[in-house]
Amino acid sequence: MPNDVIEKLKELNLELPEISTPGGNYQSVNIRGKIVYVAIQFPIYNGNFLYKGRLGLEINSQDGYNALQLCALNVLAQINSKVGFEKIVGLNHIDVYYRAVQNWHDSPKIADGASNLFANVLGAKGQHSRGLMGVENFPGNFSVGLITTWTLI
Amino acid sequence: MPNDVIEKLKELNLELPEISTPGGNYQSVNIRGKIVYVAIQFPIYNGNFLYKGRLGLEINSQDGYNALQLCALNVLAQINSKVGFEKIVGLNHIDVYYRAVQNWHDSPKIADGASNLFANVLGAKGQHSRGLMGVENFPGNFSVGLITTWTLI
Amino acid sequence: MPNDVIEKLKELNLELPEISTPGGNYQSVNIRGKIVYVAIQFPIYNGNFLYKGRLGLEINSQDGYNALQLCALNVLAQINSKVGFEKIVGLNHIDVYYRAVQNWHDSPKIADGASNLFANVLGAKGQHSRGLMGVENFPGNFSVGLITTWTLI
Repeated sequence: MPNDVIEKLKELNLELPEISTPGGNYQSVNIRGKIVYVAIQFPIYNGNFLYKGRLGLEINSQDGYNALQLCALNVLAQINSKVGFEKIVGLNHIDVYYRAVQNWHDSPKIADGASNLFANVLGAKGQHSRGLMGVENFPGNFSVGLITTWTLI
Repeated sequence: MPNDVIEKLKELNLELPEISTPGGNYQSVNIRGKIVYVAIQFPIYNGNFLYKGRLGLEINSQDGYNALQLCALNVLAQINSKVGFEKIVGLNHIDVYYRAVQNWHDSPKIADGASNLFANVLGAKGQHSRGLMGVENFPGNFSVGLITTWTLI
Repeated sequence: MPNDVIEKLKELNLELPEISTPGGNYQSVNIRGKIVYVAIQFPIYNGNFLYKGRLGLEINSQDGYNALQLCALNVLAQINSKVGFEKIVGLNHIDVYYRAVQNWHDSPKIADGASNLFANVLGAKGQHSRGLMGVENFPGNFSVGLITTWTLI
């Protein structure tokens, strides 16, 4: 299954980024009981902070889609590194947070940047429910952030 | 128990709305292990998007209360349709999100629009903890949104 | 273990505040299955609402750190009162919410006000993943709020 994920990503011309380190005194992945809690992931690629700014002003909706796809890749990299996909029943729920200007309404479209990746790479294991909230402030001026939980076998 | 819920709603002059369809590539209800994750529900009534705008500007606190009651009715409709109340131990936690102008402070009051409905209709099964966060942006210019999790028998 | 927590707090010159009562029709602590859901905790000390305003304007980053430490103390007081630390496997995840002015970027630093307390007082049981979201509005004009979940033995 880990190889399946890597292969699926290759077919999509994507690869897992390096896992980022926590920006504080917490764990990127915390397992309690049968649930895997993944800390908020931002659009970081191999140490580079990307997709900063406010949707509808500094960055557009296609950028937002790509930014959330990158957040989802970071989630997959964390699961791959700290848990292993063979130990996962599936994805539970994702909370998509984004920063946008007033009267910007493309959030469902950009959220699919994460949702499509999970569906395409993991199939039924990637099915999830979703929250979608436009916030005001993020560390590092990031445009988006993604919180996920998973269930262990 | 499903009939009990419907009857309790009738006593309150309420009924379950049609379940809304996801606005993206996700599930309205996702079950993993013993937990039921319900995607964010907005104040939609049979396909009509209601209670748009910002609390304290376009809509008032009574509207906000009704909007969150409608979100909660949509949650109940999802559980009724996809799970069945007879399979539910109870409601876990609700996250209430709202959009308001600066210096508007009625959020605990409007959040009870959801909390009272769950308590009145489900009794002890409807007991829950709560989060309450004022966000900046929602899809469709909605004023409020509601995320819930439930525990299965 | 409860005594251990109280002793550790004493070493840090801290003590558990009185538990606050819910500001609506919900439970401060809700247990379903093996998970303990704690309602959002604000920087309240023995009934006094502290640390109001917006980070970077009315209050500074050291205040924010202290405010989140106080939220975490309120979480510990709830667990101590309603569950008991001897029944806890550990902390799962914390969601840190804060209100700040534009271009304020100290949120990881203030979030450690909560994360450090859980780590210092509970050791491995206090390990957690973290979310960090800058919101616009809170009841009572609070600057920060904290949502946590825990796992039972």
